[in-house]
Amino acid sequence: MKIGVFDSGVGGMTVLSELRKEFGAEEFVYLGDTAHVPYGTKSPAQVKKLSADCAATLVARGVEILVVACNTASSLALDEIRAAAGARVRVVGVVGPGVEAALESGPKKVLVLATRATVKSGAYRRLLSASGVEVIEQACPLLVPMIEEGWTDHSVLHQTIAEYVRSHRDQHQPGVALLGCTHYPWIQEAFEKALPGWRVVNSASAVARHLMQHEGLSPSRGPGTVEWIFTDPDAIPAFVNTELQRGKS
Amino acid sequence: MKIGVFDSGVGGMTVLSELRKEFGAEEFVYLGDTAHVPYGTKSPAQVKKLSADCAATLVARGVEILVVACNTASSLALDEIRAAAGARVRVVGVVGPGVEAALESGPKKVLVLATRATVKSGAYRRLLSASGVEVIEQACPLLVPMIEEGWTDHSVLHQTIAEYVRSHRDQHQPGVALLGCTHYPWIQEAFEKALPGWRVVNSASAVARHLMQHEGLSPSRGPGTVEWIFTDPDAIPAFVNTELQRGKS
Repeated sequence: MKIGVFDSGVGGMTVLSELRKEFGAEEFVYLGDTAHVPYGTKSPAQVKKLSADCAATLVARGVEILVVACNTASSLALDEIRAAAGARVRVVGVVGPGVEAALESGPKKVLVLATRATVKSGAYRRLLSASGVEVIEQACPLLVPMIEEGWTDHSVLHQTIAEYVRSHRDQHQPGVALLGCTHYPWIQEAFEKALPGWRVVNSASAVARHLMQHEGLSPSRGPGTVEWIFTDPDAIPAFVNTELQRGKS
Repeated sequence: MKIGVFDSGVGGMTVLSELRKEFGAEEFVYLGDTAHVPYGTKSPAQVKKLSADCAATLVARGVEILVVACNTASSLALDEIRAAAGARVRVVGVVGPGVEAALESGPKKVLVLATRATVKSGAYRRLLSASGVEVIEQACPLLVPMIEEGWTDHSVLHQTIAEYVRSHRDQHQPGVALLGCTHYPWIQEAFEKALPGWRVVNSASAVARHLMQHEGLSPSRGPGTVEWIFTDPDAIPAFVNTELQRGKS
């Protein structure tokens, strides 16, 4: 089985990493559109066009499943990606599986933490509200730059997260917090520290489970392979280099 | 006189603002390439291509002077911009004027604060070293996102600046700090606070002075005009809206 993982940059590597844990024997193709990252600040029209182009690249490599590991693309461009991918390729975004995982414990409220663009798109709000839960949203635009700076356990990061979640933590009983950005699994522990008692769910592991439960993929162990494609190979943040080397070996 | 100001995003508005203070009667055209911001993470080849495209757009509007208010473009793409602009248009980058301003007080050392891409380009280092001064460089990649978040006087910003400058402040006598990023004039005071005794120079006001001293522009007062062009009008950070409205009026 050939599985494509598409992201605007390197954040989708958290999704790839979860997929490789579960489906270790498969062939993966990772496409990071680093020439155009970030999608989050771009207009919907541009995100749709760029996403469709990337989908076409992955389809040309023969992928049978296309995982859209980018929240912005999953929120804004899933229809365009499906059209570009054609009927034979199964397309799975991160928003749906993330919402499934958040709803699993039957919460009354869900706090969504994401980039500004993802919050603005309303994708998580729509899906969660349709299930009757109350949705609280918090845009956290500084966290991706801090993660890419390698400040994943830095006092500035902890202070920034504390500032983002403070009012929600003070106003609400502990509940479910859904990390709606593929970079955030890298700082899952920092969120757990800032939200004591909350169940912190991320969409990276949710996607792996979704593929097992809804797309019939069987868990496997094995060496597998990853082919890496970056639309601008010079524009990869330094902090992922180790991960990339490991992925390549 | 029609003056074009080009930046990858909104940072160049600090340069435009200084130019309007000095040359208030002129016609300005501001071009922010918000569809492709940030340039700082892109490859040199891509920066050259995008910059040449933007120069062509401004030349088509009839500008006679083209101010490249983007440090990345000034560092990497000045030749391509000159080629695209043609012989009749005078092209002025921010790096040269910034260096002139830093050298004015005859310092032995200059601390350059900029984005990672600008530091990596070596543009400031080359020009400053050629004048025989010692160059210290510090990349500050988190400051632009914080400014765009509106956290211009936030404890997280002050802590981040303190962290970036601490070792330089401890190791060196107070000297000249050159802000090599067009966003940084918005937080000039925060830098001055973090570097007591240092002379903090920014390239925005340096460009205005350069146009007077080397390009023969005469100071003027008057209503003037600004035409705003954004390659993605939906991708303008909220924090500049007030400034934009004021600029428009």
